[in-house]
Amino acid sequence: MAAACKDADSSVAGLSVGKDDNFGDWYSEVVVNGELIEEYDIAGCYVMRPWAISIWEIMKDFFDAEIKKMKIKNCYFPLFLSAGDLQKEKDHMEGFASQVAWVTRSGESELKLPIAIRPTSETAMYPYFSKWIRGHRDLPLRFNQWCNVVRWEFNNPTPFIRQSREFLWQEGHTAFATKQEADTEVLDILELYRRIYEEFLAVPVVKGKKSEHEKFAGGLYTTTVEAFVPNAGRGVQGASSNCLGQNFARIFEINFENEKGENATVWQNSWAFTTRTIGLMVMVHGDDKGLVLPPKVASLQAIVIPILSNQDADTHMIFDACASTVKILNEAGIRAEADLRDNYSHGWKNSHWEMKGVPLRIEIGPKDLANNQVRAVRRDNFAEIDISMSELVEKVENTLRCIQENLFNVARQKRDSCIQIIRTWEEFTEALSQKKMIFAPWCDEEAVEKDVIARTEGSMGPAKSLCSPLDQPPLTEEVHCALHLESLLRNGPIGEGATDIS
Amino acid sequence: MAAACKDADSSVAGLSVGKDDNFGDWYSEVVVNGELIEEYDIAGCYVMRPWAISIWEIMKDFFDAEIKKMKIKNCYFPLFLSAGDLQKEKDHMEGFASQVAWVTRSGESELKLPIAIRPTSETAMYPYFSKWIRGHRDLPLRFNQWCNVVRWEFNNPTPFIRQSREFLWQEGHTAFATKQEADTEVLDILELYRRIYEEFLAVPVVKGKKSEHEKFAGGLYTTTVEAFVPNAGRGVQGASSNCLGQNFARIFEINFENEKGENATVWQNSWAFTTRTIGLMVMVHGDDKGLVLPPKVASLQAIVIPILSNQDADTHMIFDACASTVKILNEAGIRAEADLRDNYSHGWKNSHWEMKGVPLRIEIGPKDLANNQVRAVRRDNFAEIDISMSELVEKVENTLRCIQENLFNVARQKRDSCIQIIRTWEEFTEALSQKKMIFAPWCDEEAVEKDVIARTEGSMGPAKSLCSPLDQPPLTEEVHCALHLESLLRNGPIGEGATDIS
Repeated sequence: MAAACKDADSSVAGLSVGKDDNFGDWYSEVVVNGELIEEYDIAGCYVMRPWAISIWEIMKDFFDAEIKKMKIKNCYFPLFLSAGDLQKEKDHMEGFASQVAWVTRSGESELKLPIAIRPTSETAMYPYFSKWIRGHRDLPLRFNQWCNVVRWEFNNPTPFIRQSREFLWQEGHTAFATKQEADTEVLDILELYRRIYEEFLAVPVVKGKKSEHEKFAGGLYTTTVEAFVPNAGRGVQGASSNCLGQNFARIFEINFENEKGENATVWQNSWAFTTRTIGLMVMVHGDDKGLVLPPKVASLQAIVIPILSNQDADTHMIFDACASTVKILNEAGIRAEADLRDNYSHGWKNSHWEMKGVPLRIEIGPKDLANNQVRAVRRDNFAEIDISMSELVEKVENTLRCIQENLFNVARQKRDSCIQIIRTWEEFTEALSQKKMIFAPWCDEEAVEKDVIARTEGSMGPAKSLCSPLDQPPLTEEVHCALHLESLLRNGPIGEGATDIS
Repeated sequence: MAAACKDADSSVAGLSVGKDDNFGDWYSEVVVNGELIEEYDIAGCYVMRPWAISIWEIMKDFFDAEIKKMKIKNCYFPLFLSAGDLQKEKDHMEGFASQVAWVTRSGESELKLPIAIRPTSETAMYPYFSKWIRGHRDLPLRFNQWCNVVRWEFNNPTPFIRQSREFLWQEGHTAFATKQEADTEVLDILELYRRIYEEFLAVPVVKGKKSEHEKFAGGLYTTTVEAFVPNAGRGVQGASSNCLGQNFARIFEINFENEKGENATVWQNSWAFTTRTIGLMVMVHGDDKGLVLPPKVASLQAIVIPILSNQDADTHMIFDACASTVKILNEAGIRAEADLRDNYSHGWKNSHWEMKGVPLRIEIGPKDLANNQVRAVRRDNFAEIDISMSELVEKVENTLRCIQENLFNVARQKRDSCIQIIRTWEEFTEALSQKKMIFAPWCDEEAVEKDVIARTEGSMGPAKSLCSPLDQPPLTEEVHCALHLESLLRNGPIGEGATDIS
């Protein structure tokens, strides 16, 4: 049988460059060859293939069920925004103006007024919040929508990461009677984002608060989960949960009668995660053979491959063993399939499913058949295990759990080895040139941040602040902002403590 | 307690017009007052509130699970189409040209080429089908996506029905090696659409084939589920499942090597259902008190309302009974909530939940408490039933089942009473003027259909063919096309048989 395989004209599209050699090129290849995306004939747009959408759907199902437990309701607001509403909040508009795509024509007719495609939906939703909220019993009002948004970036985007021009996300928009309730929700949602990254994607993140310079345009404060990509030496914002304060509420007049019968203004949050999650997972776990999918988000957790001998008599029995192995795994809730195609060689199939990142390969050959066992090969570390059919489900479940844990532990170890704790400006610039993730004491003043950016332009930067982590080291001594403007250098202790910068 | 209720300043927004008095106005009011939608500040766009989205999600969950069983995979193609791809299929382009919204600007910059927003995704997807399909083992290729599409209608749309300018749908796009496989899928999907209407929305439909004049632009044939709205005297296409034949495949060069090693062209289908489903459900079941939701699609199947006496001592016990009733129902998988708000009267709450169409209202007052029972009131026929707490789950489940069945039976009875079977042109025009759904023998010739449209313009029409039903009456005699051009009148029997026309 194996002799008939057309290896020559059906070779797996391998990677032409290693992850450590040219990370950017490696990434561009692996997302296409791993069948997550295809380039599209409109620059900056991508086709999301089923292999990517199935990952998105698993995260979506988890998050949607969690927010429904929190009594948050899904809705759907239009794709289109009027220019008037979009411009109501000045900082917000300035933050998005250069990226807005405008519809000016329908059929052959010019529209009277150009219409914006949503880059985000604050300005679409909040006029209705104003209408729907009358008294304290209408609060909290907690909405979410799953939708597409468009941000027309002029730089060529990195698929998933530096977003494509259209991307998928959820956006939550909520209103509360008190700041305290809003603060609590901000952190509840942030914890869900942490779980998506750490429990599902096996990507370690740091929870923290964005600087004034980096926070959401028009909001009060922004919390974030920050991931780090060692190969790029770059921190990437994973998702953000914003407290908008009362700024939008004042502009859109979202007021209510409180319990005392007085007129009051609501406190608002907005929060979102996007398909960027998928790109970060690829960057963190992928290797020179292709994607490496954590079992929890893999739509296919185990691929079963027959290893055929030259004896035709064995073929049927091996095929049957593959099919019944899949059946047993499926019945136990494990997502498994058999690749019984007879026009591809065993070697081709190995490479193919390694490129697609399937967590576990299960091989069944004549020897396995004789021993009533299968051979399992892990995608994460290529370890091979013989599994007796009598223990199949238990051992496969256990191995998938180990792969999930191991991916997270390895990623955390790599991330941690890139962390540099610094105390002085000299240490800071040295660590920056080594593309480290830097923990530095700093004052979180906008002037200082702009000065740091200006001073690190060029080969080593510019430096970008990631967040002030929520978990701070105890202050056992006087700490000074290591990045402080020399002319403003102060001697007092700095409240904000450590900040991630990369 | 009841005395404190602010009925005066919080009256339920009732309907100013009856369903039989002015159906159009009634519909416009009921979709807003029932909290399904809000008007939006861009004409022809609507906000879909949680009450509407929860219905959509229930249908989506059902359909998505069914197509996944059929090995159809979800993907996501871009919102944007290049003008070049959109224009590749001439009939298709002509079918959509006048409705296409064009993006011509991003930020302050004019785009080099205008970019279309998808009215449908054939032309986005099929270049990739051509790329991905090489040999017969790549077939069938079966994709679906859940997304928004934009069709910029110039007439003021009817929310949900004569689509808003943006609407939500699923679009399936599949390719097969043989016509037979494509034909089979067309009917499998049509059956899922029938189930959505009849089993979920309790709306009776007729399965059939569209005329040449009405079929999908560029396709081979179109099957449809057709609903009828008695108050409007109008048939409405509920969803369509199209066989595209090989037309698009030839234009987009979707070819494959078949089992004999020959070059062959695929057979394609496309199929879609939209948020129109929600509008049809409202039109068929709604009444002068508001929406009437079938239990299967109601996100809230039972609302529990306390009936308070003037004795404060009872209040806590009644509230506790309401809460424990909800708990018991929820644990049995029934979607129930209690409305314990103390600032609304019992009467206000009744009107409010009737307007929103909740299938069952459960009242608990002092007498019920004493008798260890609840009183249930059906939304569909206002029948009242006392239910002993010991039989709560069983009786509520049973009542919800009865409501679902009754809504369907009543709707079918009303629909059937509007059907007129005709044999001559005179009977046809008479039935048309009475806004009947007409079953007529006809020849399915495009010239005849255009002539019928021309001859029925004005007060009574124009007549519009709905479909040739898949279930045809047996031909026991010679049948002539009752609508045939007089000049072409033939005497031979007509193969196509009865057609729904309204």
